[in-house]
Amino acid sequence: MSLSEFDIIEKYFSNVGPQRNDVSISVGDDCAVLQPLPNHDIVVTVDNLVDGVHFDATTPVESLAYKAVMVSVSDIAAMGANPCWLSLALTLPVPERHWLELFSKGLHAACEQTGVRLVGGNMSRGPLNISTQLTGQLYKGQAVLRSGAGEGDLVYITGRIGEAALGLLLHQKKLPDCTFSAGVREHLLSRWYRPTARMSVGLALPSIASACIDISDGVMADLGHLLSTSGVGASIEINKLPLPEEFFAVAEQVGGWQVPLCGGEDYELCFTTAPKNAQKIKQISESVGVKISQIGAIEKQSGLRLTLNSEAFDLDHSNQGIGFTHFN
Amino acid sequence: MSLSEFDIIEKYFSNVGPQRNDVSISVGDDCAVLQPLPNHDIVVTVDNLVDGVHFDATTPVESLAYKAVMVSVSDIAAMGANPCWLSLALTLPVPERHWLELFSKGLHAACEQTGVRLVGGNMSRGPLNISTQLTGQLYKGQAVLRSGAGEGDLVYITGRIGEAALGLLLHQKKLPDCTFSAGVREHLLSRWYRPTARMSVGLALPSIASACIDISDGVMADLGHLLSTSGVGASIEINKLPLPEEFFAVAEQVGGWQVPLCGGEDYELCFTTAPKNAQKIKQISESVGVKISQIGAIEKQSGLRLTLNSEAFDLDHSNQGIGFTHFN
Repeated sequence: MSLSEFDIIEKYFSNVGPQRNDVSISVGDDCAVLQPLPNHDIVVTVDNLVDGVHFDATTPVESLAYKAVMVSVSDIAAMGANPCWLSLALTLPVPERHWLELFSKGLHAACEQTGVRLVGGNMSRGPLNISTQLTGQLYKGQAVLRSGAGEGDLVYITGRIGEAALGLLLHQKKLPDCTFSAGVREHLLSRWYRPTARMSVGLALPSIASACIDISDGVMADLGHLLSTSGVGASIEINKLPLPEEFFAVAEQVGGWQVPLCGGEDYELCFTTAPKNAQKIKQISESVGVKISQIGAIEKQSGLRLTLNSEAFDLDHSNQGIGFTHFN
Repeated sequence: MSLSEFDIIEKYFSNVGPQRNDVSISVGDDCAVLQPLPNHDIVVTVDNLVDGVHFDATTPVESLAYKAVMVSVSDIAAMGANPCWLSLALTLPVPERHWLELFSKGLHAACEQTGVRLVGGNMSRGPLNISTQLTGQLYKGQAVLRSGAGEGDLVYITGRIGEAALGLLLHQKKLPDCTFSAGVREHLLSRWYRPTARMSVGLALPSIASACIDISDGVMADLGHLLSTSGVGASIEINKLPLPEEFFAVAEQVGGWQVPLCGGEDYELCFTTAPKNAQKIKQISESVGVKISQIGAIEKQSGLRLTLNSEAFDLDHSNQGIGFTHFN
């Protein structure tokens, strides 16, 4: 028996995520009706995952839905806001029960984990395209923007960077499975398949961060956006970057520093704050159980300057740098 | 010179729609930051237009953007809300300047006309897919739902229905261009290319309508949704339907009543209200300059019953009905 659009919505896309009492009307009317908190701004983000661009036929279906939600939650976290209400626009070639079950499972998992409720959406036939639109909220005027970094601020980053890029290389079979132990391989793949948005750190940011961005396109590119929007520059000490030790094991094989510095999809948060907040950052890190590393400082002069062992470092001609023994 | 994602956003998707002082941060950060009014609910809708499904290579590019916005505005209008903030997720095979110029022109036109501001979005490479997500607002608890229709309410519809379906037949060359005069042809095509969401009527509805839906999938299907959600039925008098006279000229050629009754994309509003509000409806119609027709009444018994000249009418076996002389 074939599935109608209404069957699909009823079976796979109803009651996704925790019940929220700020949702008056959910899936099933012309619009969802939602109740923002008094004295709060809302923040809105939209993201797409496109077949053949962001994933391929071998990417686990559950992870597509999971990642689609997390990518949007990460944007909300980067503003210092609380993610609330999700809309999903799903374009599908043919609705297959097994595919829909797996997709729905990933969607449920990500929504439950983040407290987000699916409140509406749209289904069309066509080449597979997953568009998520997420609304969050936070106290009026408290959003952490890309534009607030000032000279003398320190630059911090959550978690570790480059793991998703290694996961992608494993997924693409550009790194053979035998490169790492099974456990490490699973961990790296899961960092690409099922990234974790840094919600808890994001929620702590409004009181202390001067600027923030999430790392979707690689730390060099995204920190670059933050710097240019803020009209400042930065010096970053490569030794301080929270790189996975697995990177150093395969650095020459994968082509060097480009992988952790320019590889995307880590969905870590990169933020800036005044040096006086160093102790608060440490407390946040401990209370939410997420590593937060200070990687450099904001400077007046525009541009992003890398140093390695306090010497200027040129990423474009950096492959010789990999061999430095103190990284192995 | 090829266009980067950032060039495209800067050149074609910045400053779209009127400035709004409730937009703190627009295109260019991780999220847009928006200020809902105090004591208001927000309403959210998402829609997709997919190449090969909702349009084809001969559909004017300007109209794609225009229609994408209007389809979402129509959903907001059906809730009785005011459309405010648009996000656009655009998946494009190759960014071509001429295409982007036309698309941007249609987007500007629809946003200016509806007071909607483009506040964010996403661009990806891939098969052409246009996803619009629109947020509106209205006084807390005032949303007009599909579920409120009660026995004895009258059923109303705005504008005329079936014009978009005739426009689509002209676009598809299933009706030859010579069928109508140039002016009529242009009018019918424009009803499919550039539908007009009934914003002004929608804004007047919260005080009087018991239920509302917009006509995107045809009056039979959409009124059917309203009835089943409300747990009621209705009798509709076909003589009272605001059908275009052009339909009667080609009724036998296009296959009969299915076209105006089941053809979609009119984006008119179908709503119900108590009989005592008839005079108010007349005043609204006059003050906003939109025809509003009473087409039937809500009944306790579920299902949608059609009558023609007060006799039961079966749409599935209705082609003989077309020839009735009083319709010509």
